[in-house]
Amino acid sequence: MAKSKFEYVKGFEMSDSCLPNTWLVLRLDGRGFHRFAMAHNFAKPNDILALNLMNKAASAVMQEFQDIFIAYGQSDEFSFIFKRSTNLFGRRASKLLSTVVSLFSASYVFYWSQFMKTPLLYPPAFDSRIVLYPSAKNLRDYLSWRQADCHINNLYNTCFWSLVESGLKNEEAQKRLNGTESSQKNEILFNEFGINYNNEPEQFKKGSVLLWENYHEKIQSNDGSSVGDSGNDPGKANTESAVGDSVMESTREGFTFRKRKRVVVSHVDIIGDSFWDNNNLLD
Amino acid sequence: MAKSKFEYVKGFEMSDSCLPNTWLVLRLDGRGFHRFAMAHNFAKPNDILALNLMNKAASAVMQEFQDIFIAYGQSDEFSFIFKRSTNLFGRRASKLLSTVVSLFSASYVFYWSQFMKTPLLYPPAFDSRIVLYPSAKNLRDYLSWRQADCHINNLYNTCFWSLVESGLKNEEAQKRLNGTESSQKNEILFNEFGINYNNEPEQFKKGSVLLWENYHEKIQSNDGSSVGDSGNDPGKANTESAVGDSVMESTREGFTFRKRKRVVVSHVDIIGDSFWDNNNLLD
Amino acid sequence: MAKSKFEYVKGFEMSDSCLPNTWLVLRLDGRGFHRFAMAHNFAKPNDILALNLMNKAASAVMQEFQDIFIAYGQSDEFSFIFKRSTNLFGRRASKLLSTVVSLFSASYVFYWSQFMKTPLLYPPAFDSRIVLYPSAKNLRDYLSWRQADCHINNLYNTCFWSLVESGLKNEEAQKRLNGTESSQKNEILFNEFGINYNNEPEQFKKGSVLLWENYHEKIQSNDGSSVGDSGNDPGKANTESAVGDSVMESTREGFTFRKRKRVVVSHVDIIGDSFWDNNNLLD
Amino acid sequence: MAKSKFEYVKGFEMSDSCLPNTWLVLRLDGRGFHRFAMAHNFAKPNDILALNLMNKAASAVMQEFQDIFIAYGQSDEFSFIFKRSTNLFGRRASKLLSTVVSLFSASYVFYWSQFMKTPLLYPPAFDSRIVLYPSAKNLRDYLSWRQADCHINNLYNTCFWSLVESGLKNEEAQKRLNGTESSQKNEILFNEFGINYNNEPEQFKKGSVLLWENYHEKIQSNDGSSVGDSGNDPGKANTESAVGDSVMESTREGFTFRKRKRVVVSHVDIIGDSFWDNNNLLD
Ligand SMILES: Nc1nc2c(ncn2[C@H]2C[C@H](O)[C@@H](COP(=O)(O)OP(=O)(O)OP(=O)(O)O)O2)c(=O)[nH]1
Ligand SMILES: Nc1nc2c(ncn2[C@H]2C[C@H](O)[C@@H](COP(=O)(O)OP(=O)(O)OP(=O)(O)O)O2)c(=O)[nH]1
Ligand SMILES: Nc1nc2c(ncn2[C@H]2C[C@H](O)[C@@H](COP(=O)(O)OP(=O)(O)OP(=O)(O)O)O2)c(=O)[nH]1
Ligand SMILES: Nc1nc2c(ncn2[C@H]2C[C@H](O)[C@@H](COP(=O)(O)OP(=O)(O)OP(=O)(O)O)O2)c(=O)[nH]1
Ligand SMILES: O=P(O)(O)OP(=O)(O)OP(=O)(O)O
Ligand SMILES: O=P(O)(O)OP(=O)(O)OP(=O)(O)O
Ligand SMILES: O=P(O)(O)OP(=O)(O)OP(=O)(O)O
Ligand SMILES: O=P(O)(O)OP(=O)(O)OP(=O)(O)O
Ligand SMILES: [Mg+2]
Ligand SMILES: [Mg+2]
Ligand SMILES: [Mg+2]
Ligand SMILES: [Mg+2]
Ligand SMILES: [Mg+2]
Ligand SMILES: [Mg+2]
Ligand SMILES: [Mg+2]
Ligand SMILES: [Mg+2]
Ligand SMILES: [Mg+2]
Ligand SMILES: [Mg+2]
Ligand SMILES: [Mg+2]
Ligand SMILES: [Mg+2]
Repeated sequence: MAKSKFEYVKGFEMSDSCLPNTWLVLRLDGRGFHRFAMAHNFAKPNDILALNLMNKAASAVMQEFQDIFIAYGQSDEFSFIFKRSTNLFGRRASKLLSTVVSLFSASYVFYWSQFMKTPLLYPPAFDSRIVLYPSAKNLRDYLSWRQADCHINNLYNTCFWSLVESGLKNEEAQKRLNGTESSQKNEILFNEFGINYNNEPEQFKKGSVLLWENYHEKIQSNDGSSVGDSGNDPGKANTESAVGDSVMESTREGFTFRKRKRVVVSHVDIIGDSFWDNNNLLD
Repeated sequence: MAKSKFEYVKGFEMSDSCLPNTWLVLRLDGRGFHRFAMAHNFAKPNDILALNLMNKAASAVMQEFQDIFIAYGQSDEFSFIFKRSTNLFGRRASKLLSTVVSLFSASYVFYWSQFMKTPLLYPPAFDSRIVLYPSAKNLRDYLSWRQADCHINNLYNTCFWSLVESGLKNEEAQKRLNGTESSQKNEILFNEFGINYNNEPEQFKKGSVLLWENYHEKIQSNDGSSVGDSGNDPGKANTESAVGDSVMESTREGFTFRKRKRVVVSHVDIIGDSFWDNNNLLD
Repeated sequence: MAKSKFEYVKGFEMSDSCLPNTWLVLRLDGRGFHRFAMAHNFAKPNDILALNLMNKAASAVMQEFQDIFIAYGQSDEFSFIFKRSTNLFGRRASKLLSTVVSLFSASYVFYWSQFMKTPLLYPPAFDSRIVLYPSAKNLRDYLSWRQADCHINNLYNTCFWSLVESGLKNEEAQKRLNGTESSQKNEILFNEFGINYNNEPEQFKKGSVLLWENYHEKIQSNDGSSVGDSGNDPGKANTESAVGDSVMESTREGFTFRKRKRVVVSHVDIIGDSFWDNNNLLD
Repeated sequence: MAKSKFEYVKGFEMSDSCLPNTWLVLRLDGRGFHRFAMAHNFAKPNDILALNLMNKAASAVMQEFQDIFIAYGQSDEFSFIFKRSTNLFGRRASKLLSTVVSLFSASYVFYWSQFMKTPLLYPPAFDSRIVLYPSAKNLRDYLSWRQADCHINNLYNTCFWSLVESGLKNEEAQKRLNGTESSQKNEILFNEFGINYNNEPEQFKKGSVLLWENYHEKIQSNDGSSVGDSGNDPGKANTESAVGDSVMESTREGFTFRKRKRVVVSHVDIIGDSFWDNNNLLD
């Protein structure tokens, strides 16, 4: 039973490494989440707990793969952007694709009970794909595409479920909205339901942007007593922070500080220039 | 905020469909399971519960993707073989790769507590890859490669941990085994530890083979009383069965039967011809 | 001007090797040969000289790449089949693709004046592609597809140009043939032009099949006088032979023989079984 | 003999389109030109006629594919750069690769006798590959890499053949140069052979750069007499011009002018910034 006799089959594995110096975008999307959301009674159109669970799983992925400098999530999908220069797994597409979606999926189930109030009925699955973008403009357009998609769907869904709650059948609501422009949907919401769409939660309108934030953790007073991790406050609104690798230490006013980074979630516009002007992400 | 302006970025997604009429092998492998096994106190060298959990997750994958006609697992890895003619996801590599590894990973966490006695400390991740085999011989050689690998590692590990248990340090045990042939390892086991390797559990020596089995489920006596699913007995040794799609019904001796299929686990040799002669799998 | 500073760009070359153990089919096709044929006054519908020039160029390719065990040509196209086990250029697709089409193109121009009576007006170009076939049936179906295409086009073209010669305008001839079956085209040819399609030249109906043929070349009588290469007679009908590598020598009846192989052209049916039964090509 | 029965085999052709918005570099290189140069008695180390023939073939390629905005040649190789936005052949790699190398090869043979003094003994072949570059810097570094390679080889070869001419055997010359720096080679040339390397022909030191040049062709005086194409003077030194598509006409001082573009060859430095500053090529 010589091993060598069979080992030639490894030679059928084909190289699949990604073109260097391109932004590597990995998007995953829940498989059949229409059904999954129904089965688990997700709030309509947005289940804040389910969305936060998505963010938690995405944050776990970023912790593990710190070459991801931004991630963007909405609905049942998440996009992870690896820095152009990443050499993770030698840029092998299958390795990247599989490991990220695997960790995300395992994390989604692992953290389910921390976020959701109903038990998980069956294991979910996510598909994923890698897309390469050669220019900063292409990458920004990609993220704009996803955020515009979030906006369009959310406006539609907010209208749709308002109409349904008001008594229309699903088909009637659909027919009512068919062919309407954004402005008309805003008017329906305002005139018929007293909803000012602008005042809807930013998380629903904009989706979630995950970024790395540097901070200084006070780890020890010089008299030797240890202190808590002030930067990882689970109660902090809109922040699913998580602690990354410590980088180096400094001492100030009798305290020792460790330079750390953590993932921070926000719900900001990433289509306009100001986000990109304020964050030096596209070197 | 026109959607169309950004949508061109979807054009950067490249086609990645797999050559038709080839056996599509998808192998996944635990990432850093050396550490994962230690952290969760897996029995050495084989943790039967952990191995059965792997089988359970693999079974969940087969239930979902019934074009998989055989799966083979050992250690922290599983190989799924899709039939040559599968057109699942249009044979798109990323879709197949990601969905399978995602469902496996989610299932592994989902079923963890049903199998393991210690709590799951952190979400595991699996990598995966697709390899295409054009001929039946290549495919059999692939499976032989994995099963031979199981045998070689298990023989080595059984010796190694016996030596360590007997008092050797890890490095000493390693040095002792360095360069030994199979026969010598068998002798060490027999002479020094009274272990006849042939009598070791088949699951450890051979790994796990998952196949579909047809059966008839008695669903209803004609007088209307329903009966249990006799085919899905969780207590049945060496069988992680699961119910697939029912196909058609028949009536016999006053009972109604549904033709169903389920996944059955065995630990048989798949290197020799007899397995393949007895199972008509390679048409 | 350090070389090393720039050399990193070579790392952008991506691997493109072909799946092992598949038949590698390389088909090339003249670019814009409708115009090329008109510009050079090719006989219609078949220019025997132009077709023989194609065969000559294909033969030059086979001489150079002896892993090609069969080639098939018709109209402005040629298909080269490399044996399943070929490792030429490490099965790198670009290398194979480019070198073959380049040599073919250069040969087409190089041998032009040996075959054609009019001067070459401008350099032609051919596209090419590689397609992999995993099974013998797939490969045979590929060749059948090309030969059926030859038959269908030739029958149509023979009718079409007969009609045009008889006085119809191109559009009228086209309309006349529109929607006709093979049998009807045969009848038009027979009834209106006295042409029995079966008696048309095999080369036009079947295209050209290039194969290797072994033969013994008498190289020297033992008294030292050299003799001609009897196997490479340019006057031999339907045979564009060419001399491959000599393999080994033998001595018989006072003569020395060298075992050689040469490319032989025929115009046989390759759709039915008998060709394949008579030629042991698909091991 | 239904065509449809076999046509499924076309489904085995796999998509191979190139990532959008990347510079598409197609490099071809003579196969075995060491032997080819010897067989045809190329001057050593540089045969100006052979190099000009390469330029002529490259110019023919550019004429045909005007999305190529720059081409660079040296020794037996040529690189063609397609503009980032090209959609030629839908960016299909095989189509681009094969058509370009085919046209180049056919042109090389077609124009051989116009340039060379000895007859062509056998048809040459060129390999080719496509490499994608995502950034302007990467592209410039690519071209710098090729031009630096030209310089390094030419300096070496100039020394080598000077030494050989002076009486050294090939191996002795090689040993002499082994491990020498550029400066040392310059000194050998100057001190031993009175050659100032700087005064060597630019074409040998820098290779050939092919660019498009716009010009106005005087096509007709308004009195109706036609005039020659002043832009296409074959005697013009260092210019292998060729006429591209006319774009539009204008009338000035009683003459009609057509705006045309032609390929112009120069031997300039493309490593430094000034070339790129002076030519607006990398938008
Ligand atoms: N009620 C509710 N549904 C949600 C929420 N987030 C996502 N979903 C559902 C709504 C959509 O039906 C679905 C996402 O749309 P997709 O286009 O991804 O479709 P789906 O996942 O069903 O199919 P797929 O497998 O991705 O093709 O997930 C939520 O917060 N609340
Ligand atoms: N104790 C114990 N360890 C196991 C068992 N099954 C697998 N493992 C461990 C032993 C090996 O260190 C590891 C599998 O070897 P791998 O070559 O896949 O290495 P690992 O997963 O650490 O690294 P990788 O990320 O796959 O490169 O998993 C088990 O049943 N019991
Ligand atoms: N008169 C004449 N024409 C021929 C002969 N062999 C090929 N041709 C012409 C007829 C067809 O118009 C053309 C081959 O058809 P294709 O489908 O390859 O079209 P063409 O090469 O024009 O375009 P392409 O660049 O391949 O898409 O070549 C011949 O022996 N005599
Ligand atoms: N004498 C002479 N030789 C030249 C000239 N241009 C190119 N060559 C020869 C010198 C080199 O041996 C050869 C180019 O080097 P390559 O690395 O491309 O090698 P070669 O084509 O032999 O092999 P390959 O098939 O490309 O791997 O061509 C020339 O102008 N004069
Ligand atoms: O919307 P996407 O990105 O999921 O793309 P799609 O059009 O749904 O199709 P698929 O998931 O099959 O790629
Ligand atoms: O043993 P495998 O199949 O996991 O292959 P490997 O040699 O470990 O390498 P990788 O996982 O990096 O492909
Ligand atoms: O007929 P083919 O094989 O040349 O294929 P096609 O349909 O003409 O298309 P293309 O040459 O663009 O692949
Ligand atoms: O120098 P190149 O670019 O031809 O590359 P190589 O190292 O010679 O190798 P190959 O031609 O086999 O790619
Ligand atoms: Mg989708
Ligand atoms: Mg989904
Ligand atoms: Mg979705
Ligand atoms: Mg591995
Ligand atoms: Mg592992
Ligand atoms: Mg493993
Ligand atoms: Mg075509
Ligand atoms: Mg053609
Ligand atoms: Mg054709
Ligand atoms: Mg090379
Ligand atoms: Mg060369
Ligand atoms: Mg070269």
